Amino acid sequence: MQNYIQENQDRFVAELMDWLRIPSISTDKNFKNDVLRAAEFVAEKLRLAGADKVEICPTAGNPIVYAEKMIDPKLPTVLYYGHYDVQPADPLELWTSPPFEPQIKNETIYARGASDDKGQVYMHIKAFEMMVKHQKVACNMKFMIEGEEEIGSEHLTPFVKENKEKLKSDVILISDTNMLASDCPSITVGLRGLAYVEVEVTGTNRDLHSGLYGGAVVNPINALAAMIAKLKDDKNRITVPNFYDKVLEVSPAERLAMSKAPFDENIYKNDISAPELSGEIGFSALEHVSIRPTLDVNGIWGGYTGEGAKTVIAAKAYAKISMRLVPNQEPNEIANLFKKYFESIAPKSVNVQVHFHHGGQPYVTDTQSVAYQAAEKAVERTFGKKPIPMRGGGSIPIVAMFKQELQRDSILMGFGLDSDAIHSPNEHFGIFNFLKGIETIPYFYQYLAEMS
Amino acid sequence: MQNYIQENQDRFVAELMDWLRIPSISTDKNFKNDVLRAAEFVAEKLRLAGADKVEICPTAGNPIVYAEKMIDPKLPTVLYYGHYDVQPADPLELWTSPPFEPQIKNETIYARGASDDKGQVYMHIKAFEMMVKHQKVACNMKFMIEGEEEIGSEHLTPFVKENKEKLKSDVILISDTNMLASDCPSITVGLRGLAYVEVEVTGTNRDLHSGLYGGAVVNPINALAAMIAKLKDDKNRITVPNFYDKVLEVSPAERLAMSKAPFDENIYKNDISAPELSGEIGFSALEHVSIRPTLDVNGIWGGYTGEGAKTVIAAKAYAKISMRLVPNQEPNEIANLFKKYFESIAPKSVNVQVHFHHGGQPYVTDTQSVAYQAAEKAVERTFGKKPIPMRGGGSIPIVAMFKQELQRDSILMGFGLDSDAIHSPNEHFGIFNFLKGIETIPYFYQYLAEMS
Repeated sequence: MQNYIQENQDRFVAELMDWLRIPSISTDKNFKNDVLRAAEFVAEKLRLAGADKVEICPTAGNPIVYAEKMIDPKLPTVLYYGHYDVQPADPLELWTSPPFEPQIKNETIYARGASDDKGQVYMHIKAFEMMVKHQKVACNMKFMIEGEEEIGSEHLTPFVKENKEKLKSDVILISDTNMLASDCPSITVGLRGLAYVEVEVTGTNRDLHSGLYGGAVVNPINALAAMIAKLKDDKNRITVPNFYDKVLEVSPAERLAMSKAPFDENIYKNDISAPELSGEIGFSALEHVSIRPTLDVNGIWGGYTGEGAKTVIAAKAYAKISMRLVPNQEPNEIANLFKKYFESIAPKSVNVQVHFHHGGQPYVTDTQSVAYQAAEKAVERTFGKKPIPMRGGGSIPIVAMFKQELQRDSILMGFGLDSDAIHSPNEHFGIFNFLKGIETIPYFYQYLAEMS
Repeated sequence: MQNYIQENQDRFVAELMDWLRIPSISTDKNFKNDVLRAAEFVAEKLRLAGADKVEICPTAGNPIVYAEKMIDPKLPTVLYYGHYDVQPADPLELWTSPPFEPQIKNETIYARGASDDKGQVYMHIKAFEMMVKHQKVACNMKFMIEGEEEIGSEHLTPFVKENKEKLKSDVILISDTNMLASDCPSITVGLRGLAYVEVEVTGTNRDLHSGLYGGAVVNPINALAAMIAKLKDDKNRITVPNFYDKVLEVSPAERLAMSKAPFDENIYKNDISAPELSGEIGFSALEHVSIRPTLDVNGIWGGYTGEGAKTVIAAKAYAKISMRLVPNQEPNEIANLFKKYFESIAPKSVNVQVHFHHGGQPYVTDTQSVAYQAAEKAVERTFGKKPIPMRGGGSIPIVAMFKQELQRDSILMGFGLDSDAIHSPNEHFGIFNFLKGIETIPYFYQYLAEMS
């Protein structure tokens, strides 16, 4: 099959670029049509690759693309999951080429969604095409590709609940994570959860002139800043009461194993030009982004933000604040703890509202399972090195949902890199990684069938 | 002349509304043409009112409209100053009628600039027209109306320096302030100064995914919030070292006189729907907005501020911060003290830049001067009550500049009200106040000539 990849790689890349041209931004209703076009695109490609059945399943939100190729009930069944929606592209001015006009520079595809997750989804579709072409489909294959991952997968849960028979499988396969480096493969065995809130601080019923009112009234921006400042202490620990109560502490043995991963703090720091790293005292940078919960302001706004100076006291100030969670923190519980604390630290001179956005459960994979072993062997086969089991810092809330609703584990075999700039300007995906994914995936199915 | 006002009031209002339709927003370059149109409009109206000489004087920025009517070198000369530029109108969604489509509701004109300062400038033009028509021009009259007041009057200072002979006068008259109430007239005898800075806090070279990096890197929004929180202590005193060093403390006698002004904290609070007032401990609300310096964040922004949730750590966070100053604080000195302190409280994990916007000197009027007495008498004549001398909380930086460059005092005879919502959505100006201004102004000239 190696030859097939070489002969077809230009077409594979060109097709992916066609898909990347569709701005399927799920968080912005203005892109609704593009979201639908992106779903139709991937459905058609699954059909062309050889799926027996392809459906665009409507939901109360964006549709879910389902496809399958069932070959033998005695063989294991794998449910592949991915998403065709992407993050917004702003700030647009920081992109060196337009986010939805993909370009290849240095053997790398630049576009919003190149790595997260269209590029990684497309590896699976092309691997599937190849397996069909070579009559090497080793397992029953199911595909479920949704369009709301970037906004919390709201309509995926009811879909999964209503289609348990259709989605029946032995294991779930996902490529929406990264590996440590192209020459140092890893498989993600843990994910952080997420609690995401939006806060609104109101001082007065209208914007005020800072000369006429300044000094006598609370400024909601100053008040919000002071409240945000109170969310962490001087050790960078989150001050929300009971926030850490349920955190499952990681064993010294696991922390030791993790410390063996090749991680150069200077390279990490220099890549992002950070003057200095910063994190909870008592943990390493790699631990900060994997086994420890966090609190970050993802957006803040209020008052005059245009050119020049305006002497106004804003009526309202806003912030979007998210917390990454670790096992066994529960998103709703954490969001409620946050709300209670945030309201308690508000000065009497303001009104505070806390709204909840989507959340997600943290997750840990069993590295002793057959499916994990098959993934490990597949990656070792194509990369020449046994992948390191790593905990990831991001969240894929649906992994916990699959466990709960389908009673199945997920294998997080990702081919992206941390440096792919997902969710940032100039997102990109190496063509090496894209093709290596296409090469690796069929081995996963082959070993899973052999070992089951 | 009373009859003339009654007979012409509809035309006066209609002409003002025509002027208010021109969105002469000086802080936004997109409105450059409108700014020029607003200058041409007022120049034409001065000519029609009876000025002997009208000039639109170019500057390196927006032009300055100059006009004069010289009648007798033995009579006092008054230089009237006003501005034809306006504040931006955002947030647009909070206006109940479009900011540049003036509407009359409850005998009140709603539009950006209705009170600040087009409405108040237009009182002077119509008063001038009336004085000319009735051959009651009692002093030599000069008009200087600029287009950069809302952005710091950058090009007014060189203009004044280069035109000292042309601008020669005995006193300067300005209506860009408020009175306590329509039935409780006051004249502003003090103004606060202003230091305005913009800060930029940089964490990394690009926006980051909060899952992949969250916990290990500084979040510049969190850092900025913490720095802002450190700018005031729990007594609401500004913590910038040496900030209060040069503050001229107001005498107990003056504080007592000020406390006699009719001011109902509940009415004030309820008008703006503030849950509670808030200010420096040890001073009253009226003192907070007049004799005490302040620090307010006028705008803040960073990260994702659109609809929904985005899990990003922004590369940069920004804030616009202004400080109102009182005699004898010096704007540049204060801005530098701020910069030094702000840089000193930045964590090592961020880079901070502090840029200076325009500033302005604080000012106090001599209430014993002939010009002040003339203004007091004029207001008493038309309002039936002696005006209370009040210190204003706002800044008109050019007043201090006039004193320095022209060695002349300014009389701040304003007819607006605090509730006019200047710089806010739904700015408005009462037709009563507009017409009362037109009625009062000629008496000022008459009494000044008589008393000089």
